[in-house]
Amino acid sequence: MPDPIRVVILGGGFAGLECAKGLDDPAFDVTLVDRQNHHLFQPLLYQVATAGLSAPEIAQPLRHILSGQRNTKVLMDSVASVDLAGRRVILEEHGELPYDQLVIAMGARTGYFGHPEWSRHAGGLKTLDDAMRIRREVLSAFERAEWTADPEERARLTTIAIVGGGPTGVELAGAFAELSRVVFSGEFRRLDPAQARILLIEAAPRLLMPFDETLSHYTEQKLRRMGVEVRTGATVEEVGPEYLRVAGEEIRAATILWAAGVEAVSQTRDLGVPLDRGGRIQVLADLSVPGHPEVFAAGDIAACRDACGVNVPALCPAAMQMGKHVASVIREVAGRRRRGAVEQSPGERAAFSYRDKGIMATIGRSAAVASSKGFKMTGFTAWLAWLLVHLLFLVGFKNKVSVVLQWFYSYAVFKRASRIITGRG
Amino acid sequence: MPDPIRVVILGGGFAGLECAKGLDDPAFDVTLVDRQNHHLFQPLLYQVATAGLSAPEIAQPLRHILSGQRNTKVLMDSVASVDLAGRRVILEEHGELPYDQLVIAMGARTGYFGHPEWSRHAGGLKTLDDAMRIRREVLSAFERAEWTADPEERARLTTIAIVGGGPTGVELAGAFAELSRVVFSGEFRRLDPAQARILLIEAAPRLLMPFDETLSHYTEQKLRRMGVEVRTGATVEEVGPEYLRVAGEEIRAATILWAAGVEAVSQTRDLGVPLDRGGRIQVLADLSVPGHPEVFAAGDIAACRDACGVNVPALCPAAMQMGKHVASVIREVAGRRRRGAVEQSPGERAAFSYRDKGIMATIGRSAAVASSKGFKMTGFTAWLAWLLVHLLFLVGFKNKVSVVLQWFYSYAVFKRASRIITGRG
Repeated sequence: MPDPIRVVILGGGFAGLECAKGLDDPAFDVTLVDRQNHHLFQPLLYQVATAGLSAPEIAQPLRHILSGQRNTKVLMDSVASVDLAGRRVILEEHGELPYDQLVIAMGARTGYFGHPEWSRHAGGLKTLDDAMRIRREVLSAFERAEWTADPEERARLTTIAIVGGGPTGVELAGAFAELSRVVFSGEFRRLDPAQARILLIEAAPRLLMPFDETLSHYTEQKLRRMGVEVRTGATVEEVGPEYLRVAGEEIRAATILWAAGVEAVSQTRDLGVPLDRGGRIQVLADLSVPGHPEVFAAGDIAACRDACGVNVPALCPAAMQMGKHVASVIREVAGRRRRGAVEQSPGERAAFSYRDKGIMATIGRSAAVASSKGFKMTGFTAWLAWLLVHLLFLVGFKNKVSVVLQWFYSYAVFKRASRIITGRG
Repeated sequence: MPDPIRVVILGGGFAGLECAKGLDDPAFDVTLVDRQNHHLFQPLLYQVATAGLSAPEIAQPLRHILSGQRNTKVLMDSVASVDLAGRRVILEEHGELPYDQLVIAMGARTGYFGHPEWSRHAGGLKTLDDAMRIRREVLSAFERAEWTADPEERARLTTIAIVGGGPTGVELAGAFAELSRVVFSGEFRRLDPAQARILLIEAAPRLLMPFDETLSHYTEQKLRRMGVEVRTGATVEEVGPEYLRVAGEEIRAATILWAAGVEAVSQTRDLGVPLDRGGRIQVLADLSVPGHPEVFAAGDIAACRDACGVNVPALCPAAMQMGKHVASVIREVAGRRRRGAVEQSPGERAAFSYRDKGIMATIGRSAAVASSKGFKMTGFTAWLAWLLVHLLFLVGFKNKVSVVLQWFYSYAVFKRASRIITGRG
């Protein structure tokens, strides 16, 4: 038997993990590199930020998920750079890692449309540390608001401005509206938490742009009834310490959250391969990187137009499908080598084809929107569908049971379990 | 009706919380001050440190616990100092807080027997942040150990030295032994986690000094069989960065935990009242502070010899009983004022009497020791008793269900749910 093919996968998100799972075969020596020790179920990250779930409930150690896969090693480290010519990855801590096949699946980070300096005042929501920072800041601001005698200061402390009216922005706005109006009810003595101001700011003319217009309209109405100030067609002109300027108006807010854009991680800049405007790698139809048939990109880091000419969206199901596709291409390459068959050029390999399962966003208690293949849903039915889909895909049996329990508890008693301030230094 | 009596309670631990609950009466205007927003169930803190439970499972927001008690306000702030003559508390953030009756229940912090510089290299376990730091450090050390080629470095990274053989030290040693031998089993490719070295170092001739000798002996045997190196009669002479010297021998350990001693928080030094060697306030029989009949100390911060001449131990049940006693004394003072009766001197008031319910410590899966009123238990029975008692006292119904679920999961599948590294900055 020949030496196993060394496959290095950068990133343990949905794309990287699915790819690793697809290479469970002694023909491969797989190393999965991630700067975290865990796979994160990002679609529920907003619930950690809004004190509904605890961090371990939406994360699983990569080492644990892949423990049964003997050919796969997990390495916690950050990628310093990738040397495509030398076929090796340079790591921050553990030196270099040579590869035969490379899969780049490092995902996206929060993007500020050319204003990186805004990141200091308006944090994004991509990691567990982000979520726990947001939770800490919001809970601490309300604690201070309870004790200040200055009404202006109190208003500032209880204002949460969310920039970006996509699914994450809508979910955050809905969850914070419920936190202040329902969960906090009766727990403060001087402050009326229902007076908290939750702003949702979107530059486009409506919320949830990728959804049908009727669903956007439903979402906006629902959020307004929950007490959220929705501002569509409003551009953010400036963000500073505890304030932002929107369409000429200055708004003072202790908490400013950025859910408006993502861009590829910075390591793509130095690869010398074609990128799109957001720094994403423009891959070929088989998801390989132009000029490097042994290198692939999958998930949010890849800009991909699929076999049917569809621009693949930056969503979990797409990332999972891309990860699986890359694994199958690598298996095919290995099979041909083993059989001594002629190697295929990237253009001859199977092209990736995105299967659109639909999109959904939750607004709050018993309300969500979903659309799939022309079929639209709102309200309680959509919310049940959202619940079901998210539980189905949550990795780890124990986490599922635990999350169901937390949700049932929150639903039944209108309280949230994870309102704990930690990590203030 | 006269103005309500202003009661300020410093600390939302077991003593402070019980005292607050005992003053649920419009005759009092109660302010509970804590530097955290939550009440912490400290007896289970070691399970957060060893990745068995998540932080929110053993903590509840104070604001939530006391939401039904309309006369009570919760204030998150640190105490800068107490002005006993001026009857006011000076806070770090929110200025000063005048009081008619004061309850000091700020608990204890880790003590280093005159070597405060050791705290930089050997952290204690008193707060959720401590527990999460320990979890992060141990999990990260094992991740690095998997990838180092140097055997000495690997040995250092997988050595955990625990100083102090009391209940906390025993519980940590047992839980880390299980983490490395059972939970990590099969999850590493280069490292054999069962080779991890867990040291438990105690200066006294045996572990668990307050327990009967047979229970100490059982505990030591059990820990040895689990793979823990137990060193009794061994004094720590020096602690430095990633090493410690014990009885002349230098031991290199990436993780050094200090569970050897506690002392009162530093604010007691400036009160000008009698303290014991550990900085604890020496209270009178009614738990008031000598010379200040309107000031009380309760819980770990109080050095107290009870009505029967027993030195009250620094345990949860004692803290709860002291908190309740202080509330009853303050109620009596208020009642006499309302009726126009003569005020009692501290010596005339009801004396605190400690009801000893027994002591227990858990060692690991299905093993614990417990003793109560001359009755001794070991093994599975003691472990079941430990489980029952800890669940019974865990604050918050939801937490109980969640913790039972986690324990059942860990017990059934030998895994732990909270092995998530967060907060590396």
